[in-house]
Amino acid sequence: MRNDQRTVNSLRPIKITTHYVNHPEGSVLIEVGDTKVICNASIEDRVPPFMRGQGKGWITAEYAMLPRATAQRNIRESSKGKVSGRTMEIQRLIGRALRSVVDLDKIGERTVWVDCDVIQADGGTRTASITGAFIAVVLAFGKLLEVRSIAKMPVTDFLAATSVGVLPDGEEILDLNYEEDSQAHVDMNIVMTGAGEFVEIQGTGEEATFTNSQLQIMLNLANDGIQQIFTKQKEVLGELTERFGETVKKEG
Amino acid sequence: MRNDQRTVNSLRPIKITTHYVNHPEGSVLIEVGDTKVICNASIEDRVPPFMRGQGKGWITAEYAMLPRATAQRNIRESSKGKVSGRTMEIQRLIGRALRSVVDLDKIGERTVWVDCDVIQADGGTRTASITGAFIAVVLAFGKLLEVRSIAKMPVTDFLAATSVGVLPDGEEILDLNYEEDSQAHVDMNIVMTGAGEFVEIQGTGEEATFTNSQLQIMLNLANDGIQQIFTKQKEVLGELTERFGETVKKEG
Amino acid sequence: MRNDQRTVNSLRPIKITTHYVNHPEGSVLIEVGDTKVICNASIEDRVPPFMRGQGKGWITAEYAMLPRATAQRNIRESSKGKVSGRTMEIQRLIGRALRSVVDLDKIGERTVWVDCDVIQADGGTRTASITGAFIAVVLAFGKLLEVRSIAKMPVTDFLAATSVGVLPDGEEILDLNYEEDSQAHVDMNIVMTGAGEFVEIQGTGEEATFTNSQLQIMLNLANDGIQQIFTKQKEVLGELTERFGETVKKEG
Amino acid sequence: MRNDQRTVNSLRPIKITTHYVNHPEGSVLIEVGDTKVICNASIEDRVPPFMRGQGKGWITAEYAMLPRATAQRNIRESSKGKVSGRTMEIQRLIGRALRSVVDLDKIGERTVWVDCDVIQADGGTRTASITGAFIAVVLAFGKLLEVRSIAKMPVTDFLAATSVGVLPDGEEILDLNYEEDSQAHVDMNIVMTGAGEFVEIQGTGEEATFTNSQLQIMLNLANDGIQQIFTKQKEVLGELTERFGETVKKEG
Amino acid sequence: MRNDQRTVNSLRPIKITTHYVNHPEGSVLIEVGDTKVICNASIEDRVPPFMRGQGKGWITAEYAMLPRATAQRNIRESSKGKVSGRTMEIQRLIGRALRSVVDLDKIGERTVWVDCDVIQADGGTRTASITGAFIAVVLAFGKLLEVRSIAKMPVTDFLAATSVGVLPDGEEILDLNYEEDSQAHVDMNIVMTGAGEFVEIQGTGEEATFTNSQLQIMLNLANDGIQQIFTKQKEVLGELTERFGETVKKEG
Amino acid sequence: MRNDQRTVNSLRPIKITTHYVNHPEGSVLIEVGDTKVICNASIEDRVPPFMRGQGKGWITAEYAMLPRATAQRNIRESSKGKVSGRTMEIQRLIGRALRSVVDLDKIGERTVWVDCDVIQADGGTRTASITGAFIAVVLAFGKLLEVRSIAKMPVTDFLAATSVGVLPDGEEILDLNYEEDSQAHVDMNIVMTGAGEFVEIQGTGEEATFTNSQLQIMLNLANDGIQQIFTKQKEVLGELTERFGETVKKEG
Repeated sequence: MRNDQRTVNSLRPIKITTHYVNHPEGSVLIEVGDTKVICNASIEDRVPPFMRGQGKGWITAEYAMLPRATAQRNIRESSKGKVSGRTMEIQRLIGRALRSVVDLDKIGERTVWVDCDVIQADGGTRTASITGAFIAVVLAFGKLLEVRSIAKMPVTDFLAATSVGVLPDGEEILDLNYEEDSQAHVDMNIVMTGAGEFVEIQGTGEEATFTNSQLQIMLNLANDGIQQIFTKQKEVLGELTERFGETVKKEG
Repeated sequence: MRNDQRTVNSLRPIKITTHYVNHPEGSVLIEVGDTKVICNASIEDRVPPFMRGQGKGWITAEYAMLPRATAQRNIRESSKGKVSGRTMEIQRLIGRALRSVVDLDKIGERTVWVDCDVIQADGGTRTASITGAFIAVVLAFGKLLEVRSIAKMPVTDFLAATSVGVLPDGEEILDLNYEEDSQAHVDMNIVMTGAGEFVEIQGTGEEATFTNSQLQIMLNLANDGIQQIFTKQKEVLGELTERFGETVKKEG
Repeated sequence: MRNDQRTVNSLRPIKITTHYVNHPEGSVLIEVGDTKVICNASIEDRVPPFMRGQGKGWITAEYAMLPRATAQRNIRESSKGKVSGRTMEIQRLIGRALRSVVDLDKIGERTVWVDCDVIQADGGTRTASITGAFIAVVLAFGKLLEVRSIAKMPVTDFLAATSVGVLPDGEEILDLNYEEDSQAHVDMNIVMTGAGEFVEIQGTGEEATFTNSQLQIMLNLANDGIQQIFTKQKEVLGELTERFGETVKKEG
Repeated sequence: MRNDQRTVNSLRPIKITTHYVNHPEGSVLIEVGDTKVICNASIEDRVPPFMRGQGKGWITAEYAMLPRATAQRNIRESSKGKVSGRTMEIQRLIGRALRSVVDLDKIGERTVWVDCDVIQADGGTRTASITGAFIAVVLAFGKLLEVRSIAKMPVTDFLAATSVGVLPDGEEILDLNYEEDSQAHVDMNIVMTGAGEFVEIQGTGEEATFTNSQLQIMLNLANDGIQQIFTKQKEVLGELTERFGETVKKEG
Repeated sequence: MRNDQRTVNSLRPIKITTHYVNHPEGSVLIEVGDTKVICNASIEDRVPPFMRGQGKGWITAEYAMLPRATAQRNIRESSKGKVSGRTMEIQRLIGRALRSVVDLDKIGERTVWVDCDVIQADGGTRTASITGAFIAVVLAFGKLLEVRSIAKMPVTDFLAATSVGVLPDGEEILDLNYEEDSQAHVDMNIVMTGAGEFVEIQGTGEEATFTNSQLQIMLNLANDGIQQIFTKQKEVLGELTERFGETVKKEG
Repeated sequence: MRNDQRTVNSLRPIKITTHYVNHPEGSVLIEVGDTKVICNASIEDRVPPFMRGQGKGWITAEYAMLPRATAQRNIRESSKGKVSGRTMEIQRLIGRALRSVVDLDKIGERTVWVDCDVIQADGGTRTASITGAFIAVVLAFGKLLEVRSIAKMPVTDFLAATSVGVLPDGEEILDLNYEEDSQAHVDMNIVMTGAGEFVEIQGTGEEATFTNSQLQIMLNLANDGIQQIFTKQKEVLGELTERFGETVKKEG
């Protein structure tokens, strides 16, 4: 039994509120247990300088926490005048993950800005951000389709993420909360597509190391969890998901 | 009739959700029309260096907007590496206002950090922040009283804020939304106490100037609006408000 | 009697030296009692990016203190690598005030840079800066008129500022020096035009609050003081002041 | 056949020069093909503030490239005034990896600063940095043992890293050079210990995704390559490696 | 004949106003032709961390220009968020020069902060700063002597600086104004003591090179000019100069 | 006898390795005794904004030390977020020196970026940087000549630098190592051309002053040392040096 009564292979309850903020093209509040993240997707009608003139788009992500999303208040990164290494790692991860399931050739010279702002943190903020940001991005493309700014849904497949780890007693578990994450000997974040393939695996054992067989158990736990998340995403996104993959080049 | 059907002297609907985030000592989501601000009050058991050894406390405020709280996405101040002049003005205003109704001698060497994070903006974010932050601060002191960290409620009176202005047609109005604020010839923020006195008046007419009689009309509108806000605050804070002023030195 | 023998409604002696520095288009040393500020106005033949192509100009202000303008040496903002909140507030105030009496449509795509550098501080540095900067700006426009870069004086009216406040004994006073400012319960800066209207009112009572009747007394003190400053400005600017308002749109 | 004639499972030639710079306690120039990194380990006799008084040590790493280590000159991070996200990710990775094989309780309140400076880059700079930094750290501890500042070798096991990936034609390969890395659909960095366990797995497929069976092939390639690197490390470090693990708590 | 009618070996008129600003321990306005610099010396009763506990003092200098001290307005270094290389070079030079004639062992653990702020620039701002700063520092020490904070005058000798150069026609000249400085093929700053020895020689020929015989002519011009400056300094400082050297260790 | 057995007028052994890094157009490792500097010259096909449209080129230099190039580890300037005054002084000096022997009109609108990175420091890093950077720049121009991007060698003469100083015992010495430099009363850096003229003289006596006769002795020592360095440069550069000066305007 885990500290919140879950079994080793259960996810925390997931709640998704779409259209949470009224200005962005796509906006989602995702709650995974006590972790709450606002994911906003904004469409800008130009790309960064290094991509101009190529006729294709770009997706970039930013991540932040409210100072008191955590038990101890954190100093704002704007006050410190710089973004921490942890923040940069997370926002690079979110951006990379989203780009893996979007056909950037099909969105024209546009930038999708994804903002993931953690309102309340209880472990797994980066994986919740990816799962929620995916929904916000699909909603934003839905809006572009509606006004016929783009012709086809540029999203090729589902995308979601979760964490897995190894507790000090050697037990492999799914979807760590903050207390579990603090104690875990191994911590791994997995991003997968609807097709069941990996987009990103980031596993680290600072206090310990792990074997290939432990890795396999964790990958299986992650796979099962992520399948459940896809079901949630499908419920929320409805018929938009039927258009996934319509831009995929058949001859490719 | 105003762009949202209000009369010149009506406030927008105000909705206050307490205990919105679970970590802070005091936490409030305040909604004033479409403006939504999370106000968190955190208690830290020490004061900044310049105040050490004086046996009294300090209150300081920080203010930020999510990048897509507005119609156009704003670049994060953490990415720019510096806080804008507008942000600094607002957070200095919030801090000053709160300190005017708290007896800092009664809270020991503690710092109250107030974080106002605008989730969605439609004008009046700084006045909503003050009104909401006041509630968060009272809740945080309530928690200190509960655990007997302090003996008396250090808050001396109610505190709330609103905006008033003059439209291009010369009409004075209460509680401007974003569209009104963009057009107004005069824009004024008023902070008042429960006793009906001013804590802060900030009035500016960039496109125009204003006369003393216009000023009086605006001050009256503000006074009427702020009285209604006090009623809201009392509903939300309940019996905590009965202890306001118990620290005031009778002989003072 | 005040700490420097003045009555409650007297200004400190004002001394204005024009053409103080030889490079700027307009340059003034203003001394208000022991407060000394160099105000330079520079004309640049382009506007900031956000204003290009609109055929109108812009006025922006910067404010700084020499490190030893005060009793204790302050660290330079260039060494700290950032401009403080107080500095930003003041330079935004100066810029806004000046723009309220200049018809920006009449100066073409030019930027007026106003630099207010406090050489010696004894209270009231921001209001002295506004009063002096106004003169520097008029002189700079005078130079543009002379060389026929512009056809009409774009200044519409006089502009000056002073401070008022309430001492701990409840007395309202005009033009606070540093010692008075440190003790005052209320501190208010007022910017007015020659027509007797308000451009900006910024009043704050951190240690105390103030009533509407106190406000009225302070506004009257400010009005009387500012009238005297206008007389000084007129003496210094001479016939340039006769051209004020010649650009005002009659039909507007 | 690969672009440099290697088979899919061959490493590039590795050359290790110890005592490369004369000041650091441990100094190594590691060359992996055309990638050249100077790895210096410096011992400081104190720990960062957050660790003081715990009687244990810390290892932290910094990573940089000379501006012209690459085909195009990069702007120095000191000139930009900030460290990039990529740099932060890499230096956090190096530090974490080294800490996994050092018993920090056995080094007293000391900080080991590891500096990895890339002189010439041809892919795999972060894995070469880990492999080289491990040697520099062992040499530095060797020096501490020599002067009896510490009693036992605090290193518990070998540590090395390499990259694996998937080429566009679907072939899995070991130890990617820059050209391969630019084209690869999947790029994965693996850090392992002498015991054959994983310390870190970071795999990403920006242009593509990967399956679990591809993952297994890559992990096997990495394992074979890293075993060869351990042999190199043993040659260079000699009898120091015989003392690895002597601090491991037997009862743990 | 030079562009301002001077002979090759004449200085521009020098005017020194002491006690120019009322707060600093030593304050001077120095005018060298049209170059005007405010030099303030502030005494702080502690030294920087790297010098604590040694029982001796420190002198450090900062240098800045008002944005419109020059023909073209310069962006403030506080706005740019960093100090330029030129500024750093100059303030390091001023500090070094002053430290060469002050016996830091005799001032206790105090820091002398020297601020040189250029109000108006016409060439030679760094040498005017040194000449003026020396006077401000002596005045500040005079004040310390007066209140018996120190027992002996810690200044060992006079200190002054000037510039010399070579015009395009090959003529060596003394004390270059801005126009001359812009055209000169060689530009050299010389700092000397009352004893006629060099403290600093900084000569550079970006557009050209110079021979040893040209160097000798320039050094002689500088020596003659600096002797005249010493006379000025003596007039201004009066009897304080009689105490120079009283701290010099006789046995040294 | 000096601390490393040299006579007062001997240089330390100089070793120059060309083509040290494979990417830059010109690359040199220069070793002067135990001081080792990598000097890379990169050609960029554009000039900085302030020089565009003039048809001429620019040379700029950057200088840095590896953190552990010195006995004590230095904090990276990228971590501090700013470049120190010392670094700026040195890189400005290197750039100025190189520009004095290159005919910028003959290289078209190109920028030569010179990077001097100190791997190991033992005094004289700035002069070794100049001597090595000159070789790197000539090699880079050699490459441009080879591919006929430019028609003539734009270098007009040899360029090298060394240091001289005065030891506490009054002895003048050539080419100070770190220990000598720390003790020296006078420290002077001299940059000269093949024609035996001075490009830059920077002499400073922080602990002491120096006389004109001491200056002459130091200049002679420097001249003799630099002649030996030119011989080394000629050996390394070979026939490229025969083309020096071919662009000099005969009529100039």
